[in-house]
Amino acid sequence: MGTLPRVDGERMREDFEALSRIGATAEGGVSRPTFSDAHFAAREWFLTRARAAGLDTQVDAAGNHSAVLRVQLHRHARVLLLGSHLDSVPGGGRYDGAMGVVAALHVLLALKDAGTDLPFGVEAIDFTDEEGTLLGLLGSEALAGSLSAESLHAPRGGRDALLAGLARAGLSEARLLEARRDPQTLAGYLELHIEQGPRLEREGVRIGVVTTIVGSRSFRLVLHGAGGHAGGLPMDVRRDAAVAAARLILSVQDIVVHDFPGAVATVGDVRVEPGAFNVVPGVARLALEFRSHDDGELDAIESAVLGRARADAEANGIELAVTPVARWQPTRLDPRVSDKIERAAVDLGLTTKRLASFAGHDAQALAPVTASGMIFVPSVGGVSHDPREHTAWDDVVNGANVLLRTVERLASPS
Amino acid sequence: MGTLPRVDGERMREDFEALSRIGATAEGGVSRPTFSDAHFAAREWFLTRARAAGLDTQVDAAGNHSAVLRVQLHRHARVLLLGSHLDSVPGGGRYDGAMGVVAALHVLLALKDAGTDLPFGVEAIDFTDEEGTLLGLLGSEALAGSLSAESLHAPRGGRDALLAGLARAGLSEARLLEARRDPQTLAGYLELHIEQGPRLEREGVRIGVVTTIVGSRSFRLVLHGAGGHAGGLPMDVRRDAAVAAARLILSVQDIVVHDFPGAVATVGDVRVEPGAFNVVPGVARLALEFRSHDDGELDAIESAVLGRARADAEANGIELAVTPVARWQPTRLDPRVSDKIERAAVDLGLTTKRLASFAGHDAQALAPVTASGMIFVPSVGGVSHDPREHTAWDDVVNGANVLLRTVERLASPS
Repeated sequence: MGTLPRVDGERMREDFEALSRIGATAEGGVSRPTFSDAHFAAREWFLTRARAAGLDTQVDAAGNHSAVLRVQLHRHARVLLLGSHLDSVPGGGRYDGAMGVVAALHVLLALKDAGTDLPFGVEAIDFTDEEGTLLGLLGSEALAGSLSAESLHAPRGGRDALLAGLARAGLSEARLLEARRDPQTLAGYLELHIEQGPRLEREGVRIGVVTTIVGSRSFRLVLHGAGGHAGGLPMDVRRDAAVAAARLILSVQDIVVHDFPGAVATVGDVRVEPGAFNVVPGVARLALEFRSHDDGELDAIESAVLGRARADAEANGIELAVTPVARWQPTRLDPRVSDKIERAAVDLGLTTKRLASFAGHDAQALAPVTASGMIFVPSVGGVSHDPREHTAWDDVVNGANVLLRTVERLASPS
Repeated sequence: MGTLPRVDGERMREDFEALSRIGATAEGGVSRPTFSDAHFAAREWFLTRARAAGLDTQVDAAGNHSAVLRVQLHRHARVLLLGSHLDSVPGGGRYDGAMGVVAALHVLLALKDAGTDLPFGVEAIDFTDEEGTLLGLLGSEALAGSLSAESLHAPRGGRDALLAGLARAGLSEARLLEARRDPQTLAGYLELHIEQGPRLEREGVRIGVVTTIVGSRSFRLVLHGAGGHAGGLPMDVRRDAAVAAARLILSVQDIVVHDFPGAVATVGDVRVEPGAFNVVPGVARLALEFRSHDDGELDAIESAVLGRARADAEANGIELAVTPVARWQPTRLDPRVSDKIERAAVDLGLTTKRLASFAGHDAQALAPVTASGMIFVPSVGGVSHDPREHTAWDDVVNGANVLLRTVERLASPS
């Protein structure tokens, strides 16, 4: 096995660190929301680095950025996509998405250097707006052909932000759908990503083989009570929107922890209006999201959480408005690809664990149209979407080598 | 009693409506935070209106704006202040403060027209920043000589906002203290204000005679948990700052409702960071305020609420940082002035009720240095600090006439 090609871990580290300086925050993470200056700079860095290494590059109608290793010998060869994303949540970590793109690039470089004979082209792809600053999975859904008119009209970040963002990126809403690729042209999809949870670290396992990707639903909730003077309004007659928001947050927690232990739910944003020391809040706006690997469970959580919220609101004289924001089905990845990933890890002497992903990924957009698989590496403390997000460099290199070896295994007939 | 002078209710209404158009909001209220353009325009309107009516005007070193009815016959006459304020909370109502200033102006006009012989000058004064956009009671404390270096250095709205505001108003921090008036020059202080609560309306009483003004304490609370990926972070290991904030809001509610029924407490602002659907909030920032008429009770509430907050935070792995923001002692108004107000109302055939104010007022700054009293008129539904704030116009006229009659009673020796 000593002859297996490997990625150049040191060059990859230099690249990863150069990339991490783009949009770097004082807290040690990165902030590269979709179509921010830092995001544009990161994508430009990626194309420049790929070109310098002698790879072709391309940008499609959805703004997806790619480096491509073409196959000389096969005229109508399909292409194997190795993807992830360079956008981040605001104030996020360095590894989420970026690690997968840098690793994909280095897998191409290793294949190129080794002169490996492949039956398909290999493309390292940076998908647009995975995190959902604008819409979520925008680039991967466009490529898969599943981008819906509905989500374009009521995107998570608001319609105005979407249109302004597309304009800033020189993209046209009308042309987004042109990014769709015929599934016949695809040889599959592989994604290396950090786990963003604590399971691999807890069990001391080096490589996670992802079986399914969580489904999620998100909603905007607006609670309308009655504002008033914080001194003049007796507590027994108040319809305080902050108190209503507090009850809602704790009821979400209570319902999901006790009745749906396999799921997670989060109230990720709370704003009250007008927001002053001496005014009882009249309005509260919340961002609610929950995730499960079972679509029926998502139905049950939606019914329980929104049902309790409506009953509590009514009992307290509060009006509740609920607006659905996003809805992703749980997605099963290809078991044959998972087997290849597992064998690739074994080839490299690495321990593996099959696990479900509680995070959404571009792979869930690709899985319905092409054989898709995901590789996880451990997240220190399970922390992600936070500047403290960290993965040991050895694990990054392991993940990149498993990605490389999986490409080779997919290329071989057995 | 038919010969008692009265304010001109129709002219006063025209003036009040003209003033209400300055900073008017789509919701029917006004938004005139301290030193906003709308606030400057309202103050300018007041001086212009006073000058047009033949009154002197003046602006002191704290930016307090006054219209003055001087006494010709008494050389070293003291001055009776009739005050309130033209600033508002953001998105506030039309009556809070503004009604008292317009009524004070019309009392001066009625006294001038009647040629009433007075042993003191009478001054209608619009105090700077009563609501606390910058600091709270800034103008009245400056005039009373109680403005502290401490509050100037850590003002409620932040030091930068204070300095920027003073600069915009052409005021100098160093000169603010020059607004102090020797108490020997003051004949007393009267303030007409809306009740901002439901008690007068509930009991069908026309005039409230204020006995005491509530004390209050306010704090900024910051809860530091751990941010993280909303999918990757299992619910049982989260240290979710939004959940911690929810617990804190409900515990404040619980403690004050059950253990301190005479007090009120409000969490008037909540912000979480970073504030996204897919990120567990790592930080929550809250604005806490509570009010009582008993200083010992304020101590007890502070101890109970902050004690519970600290214990809950510790039990849930959350760091809690508490910063005191403002602290006002409960203030007793002058019983002899209250008697005069009550008799003035009786002269006019109006029902009265003695009551404590749960709102803070400039009168609490004046009370320690000069004989002070307050007149309340009913607030429809008890609503205030809200665009729906309303007082029947008859009640506004009644209040202005009681203010006028109280001035006459203070002027007479009996």
